[in-house]
Amino acid sequence: MTVDSAGLQVLSREECLELLASVPVGRIVFTDRALPAVQPVNFVLDRGLVVIRTTSGSRLAAAAGDTVVAFEADEFDAVLRTGWSVTMVGHARGVRDAAEADRLRRLPLAPWAPGTREHFIVLRPEQVSGRRMHDGL
Amino acid sequence: MTVDSAGLQVLSREECLELLASVPVGRIVFTDRALPAVQPVNFVLDRGLVVIRTTSGSRLAAAAGDTVVAFEADEFDAVLRTGWSVTMVGHARGVRDAAEADRLRRLPLAPWAPGTREHFIVLRPEQVSGRRMHDGL
Repeated sequence: MTVDSAGLQVLSREECLELLASVPVGRIVFTDRALPAVQPVNFVLDRGLVVIRTTSGSRLAAAAGDTVVAFEADEFDAVLRTGWSVTMVGHARGVRDAAEADRLRRLPLAPWAPGTREHFIVLRPEQVSGRRMHDGL
Repeated sequence: MTVDSAGLQVLSREECLELLASVPVGRIVFTDRALPAVQPVNFVLDRGLVVIRTTSGSRLAAAAGDTVVAFEADEFDAVLRTGWSVTMVGHARGVRDAAEADRLRRLPLAPWAPGTREHFIVLRPEQVSGRRMHDGL
């Protein structure tokens, strides 16, 4: 087991992707009008990409359509004081190809927020890192 | 009840601060070597400031010591498909004053991660926004 300088267990890329696939909500981190911004989103992993569904006029679509973003998911247990977090950094792009959008529309990705969300953002993870904190560490 | 363009309930600043105070973990969003970065942290609210405890040599201490950052906390229920999120943007600074550090050390802020964490970062929220998603919205 590899432990980082903060004493947290370092997760492998495979462990990171497995953990990510186990939760329905992540947070996309981007820059909005020169300020750091973060927004929780429903997502799904598909062919190694993070797929997010939003509205085409959204702040997210405008700010994270063609740029480098971070994406984070985590799960913590306040009683046990344990948990994990996974962060990815990579290029995000808005999907403009109709055939690709059609395919993504069939993924099991139903946003919890109301309204029609027919715009897709896909993120290709270039850096993936994850940490786990558990009892005894 | 105010609803935003995405159909989510807009929370007041007071509601945001109350919700923040109810959770032990948030996420600090900053820029690290020109890339968006995000890190979960234990925090506590004190006199209107978000207080984070870390190690002085940490990536977080280096990158978020004197800059504008975002801070996010949320809680989601995957079964009910409900939840809330609160985001703040504001100036973060590393605490260098010994008297201030002494006072902060007495706050109920025990990081879950192992090791000694004697460096404090305080964030003054300038923009505070929050959304709630619930059944029927």
